Amino acid sequence: MKRRAFINNTSKAAALMIAAPSFVIGNADMKKDKIRMGIIGVGARGLGTLSLCLHRDDLELVAICDIDPITLGKAEAMIAKAGRPKAKVYTGSDTAYKEMLTKKQLDAVLICTPWEWHTPMSLDAMNAGIAVGCEVAGAMSLDECWQLVRTHERSGTPFMVMENVCYRRDVMAILNMVRQGLLGEMIHLEGGYQHDLREVKFNDGVQYYGGGVEFGEKGYSEARWRTNHSVHRNGDLYPTHGIGPVGNYININRGNRFEYLTSMATKSRGLHDYIINHPKGGKDHPNANVRFNLGDIVTTNIMTSNGETITLTHDTNLPRPYSIGFRVQGTKGLWMDINKSIYIEGKSPSHRWESADTYLKEYDHPLWKRYESLASGAGHGGMDWFVLHAFVEALKRNEPMPLDVYDHASWSAITCLSEQSIDHGGAPQSFPDFTDGKWITRKPIFALNDEY
Amino acid sequence: MKRRAFINNTSKAAALMIAAPSFVIGNADMKKDKIRMGIIGVGARGLGTLSLCLHRDDLELVAICDIDPITLGKAEAMIAKAGRPKAKVYTGSDTAYKEMLTKKQLDAVLICTPWEWHTPMSLDAMNAGIAVGCEVAGAMSLDECWQLVRTHERSGTPFMVMENVCYRRDVMAILNMVRQGLLGEMIHLEGGYQHDLREVKFNDGVQYYGGGVEFGEKGYSEARWRTNHSVHRNGDLYPTHGIGPVGNYININRGNRFEYLTSMATKSRGLHDYIINHPKGGKDHPNANVRFNLGDIVTTNIMTSNGETITLTHDTNLPRPYSIGFRVQGTKGLWMDINKSIYIEGKSPSHRWESADTYLKEYDHPLWKRYESLASGAGHGGMDWFVLHAFVEALKRNEPMPLDVYDHASWSAITCLSEQSIDHGGAPQSFPDFTDGKWITRKPIFALNDEY
Repeated sequence: MKRRAFINNTSKAAALMIAAPSFVIGNADMKKDKIRMGIIGVGARGLGTLSLCLHRDDLELVAICDIDPITLGKAEAMIAKAGRPKAKVYTGSDTAYKEMLTKKQLDAVLICTPWEWHTPMSLDAMNAGIAVGCEVAGAMSLDECWQLVRTHERSGTPFMVMENVCYRRDVMAILNMVRQGLLGEMIHLEGGYQHDLREVKFNDGVQYYGGGVEFGEKGYSEARWRTNHSVHRNGDLYPTHGIGPVGNYININRGNRFEYLTSMATKSRGLHDYIINHPKGGKDHPNANVRFNLGDIVTTNIMTSNGETITLTHDTNLPRPYSIGFRVQGTKGLWMDINKSIYIEGKSPSHRWESADTYLKEYDHPLWKRYESLASGAGHGGMDWFVLHAFVEALKRNEPMPLDVYDHASWSAITCLSEQSIDHGGAPQSFPDFTDGKWITRKPIFALNDEY
Repeated sequence: MKRRAFINNTSKAAALMIAAPSFVIGNADMKKDKIRMGIIGVGARGLGTLSLCLHRDDLELVAICDIDPITLGKAEAMIAKAGRPKAKVYTGSDTAYKEMLTKKQLDAVLICTPWEWHTPMSLDAMNAGIAVGCEVAGAMSLDECWQLVRTHERSGTPFMVMENVCYRRDVMAILNMVRQGLLGEMIHLEGGYQHDLREVKFNDGVQYYGGGVEFGEKGYSEARWRTNHSVHRNGDLYPTHGIGPVGNYININRGNRFEYLTSMATKSRGLHDYIINHPKGGKDHPNANVRFNLGDIVTTNIMTSNGETITLTHDTNLPRPYSIGFRVQGTKGLWMDINKSIYIEGKSPSHRWESADTYLKEYDHPLWKRYESLASGAGHGGMDWFVLHAFVEALKRNEPMPLDVYDHASWSAITCLSEQSIDHGGAPQSFPDFTDGKWITRKPIFALNDEY
């Protein structure tokens, strides 16, 4: 397995930007026991990430950055409570993070900011030779996707997209089964983000979730920025929780790639209805006049070069229970999470669903078997623990990131291309090949053993 | 409600073809107590239909037609066993049915033949003034769809598409709920035909299902003709079980219509694998060389003029449990059949699925309440009873068909347009408006009460 070097902050970042390609192949000297970590964005998501960091002995939490003094206070209190040394705090402007990146104090940075900041911050960090763990979503254009790829290639700086659902226990057990051939050759897959976010997109400007119909300047936390994407954009804004796991099942960018997609969006009703029916909203509330461009449900079909199809659903404006809606179907059977069932020819009773439980236990992934006790209690059912663990372990060992810049670029491209397809009445849109053809020979590396 | 006249066989069919438009509005004199019925095609499906006919006192089974002497013998034995008078038998050639239609002996005919015969037989029957109950699927081109529409309009002869799943008990209960507004305004719907047909597409040339890998000339029953569609075509070959019910939920052709679709097909593996892995098949069996054009899974997205989207799945080549895969989602909640669950805002516990059972019972459709005892035990869980009942009752009362030629044409167009879209790399294909704009003012008529 080829390895990209972990470029630590003592290197001359500027020189690396030119010289990187000559020394990015495994260098044992670059292995580390401790990672000096920074976090940009310690809001709702960043505080959770901070908490996980504070539980790891191999991380020194060196610096944090945010523009909100309240949440910075919460972060500092958490650090103190954990008995850790104070972190340096960067704040005061949207670009305060840049100063944090130039201080030669960090090995790595976790980016937990609003989507629109993911790319500029990732670019700045990679250019400074600071490894990036970037929260999901965020490339706003295909050019941003390319910039991330080219900057990573030029700098040699590690980049990982922190897609936690790739580490969900059932998702990993199915990965185990897929790799052992129990479902046969992969044929069709489904996933999505089906999550009633109305109380995330609107609040009262004080609490994180719900309690009002405010957003933007008058909203707090995610409502402050995320809702604006629903006002202005129409596409699959959040594809990674579905496509990440699915991509691993069919080796996207590693023997396979996305070829083209088509998308369709329904009318937009859910967010407007929420505003006018809310006790603090109503037809006379100023937000009742907002026109939301985002269709309530966006359905995207993706064709791969190996002939599998993928259907993704983005459904965040309507009342519904949470569901990723996984379907993993091959020539020998299929698994679906919505009915917690599986069917495998020759094993399951003919033409009848079986509960997936037995299989999920039998094929529990080695990573989960090994780290179950550490992960349990961590964010989102343990998934968050695993994704941070992977980032940190790959860094320490100077090994390639299991979910890398090519994954991030091709997943993010779904958002851009789905917007384009909807704009063009469902017309198919081709994916760029962000790997420049390397997908043909690259091999799968995600979760091959029980290390990370 | 406007009514189209039932044109009985004593009328001068030729004259009607010209004069029909002037007297197709409700004519009480044309009401009937008994229908003289014929069946074209008494194979696997036709025998089931025959059995239902023989249970109805308002039907005289006058004539049957088939090219297979064995199945004709079964049909005659069933008629005799039911204590009914012998039916006239037409056989000997593919076009023997034409003679049956010219004898002025029939009020109506049920067409239960291979798909490719549905349109020519329907056209001949309508031109002869014989009302048509046509099995689902079958228009092979958009022009065939138009021919059906124009022939119906010119002749005034009633036409119904016998889509039985429209009458499934849960489907009708949900229709009831949709009409009462429990799910809010419709937003997104899903359905499909997900049925492992490998033992339908292949048999040993003797039995109906399985036991070998033969099809075409060497196959029996459906394997004799249906499999050839999988060899040559690539599209959603069988959309009606999904789209029929969904169309009723959103009033297709009655205030709404299909605007365009996109389709994607996976690689084709299932049928070839079945042949080479079957004990009577293997790599040296001649059918191992057959190239099946039909992708194992075909996914189609449809946009409607009212802004709902519909996702249809055609999945008939792979091992799996049967499922239509209904999803009916509105601004207030959604129902899915795969997990037998429902969610309704304000009724269901917040963010949690509820079992749909209670709702399906509470909103049981008046038709099912009234006819449960008659329907139970009939084909496909009672659905077949209801669809025949509707055809016969609408005929007797000289009222419009609840699932009419416009439904049949627009549903069948899905097959043709999905083939075109796949041919064009997923490019969107526009639906013709088979109603010539009448969809704007036409009102829903399907199952409005407990009559039929």
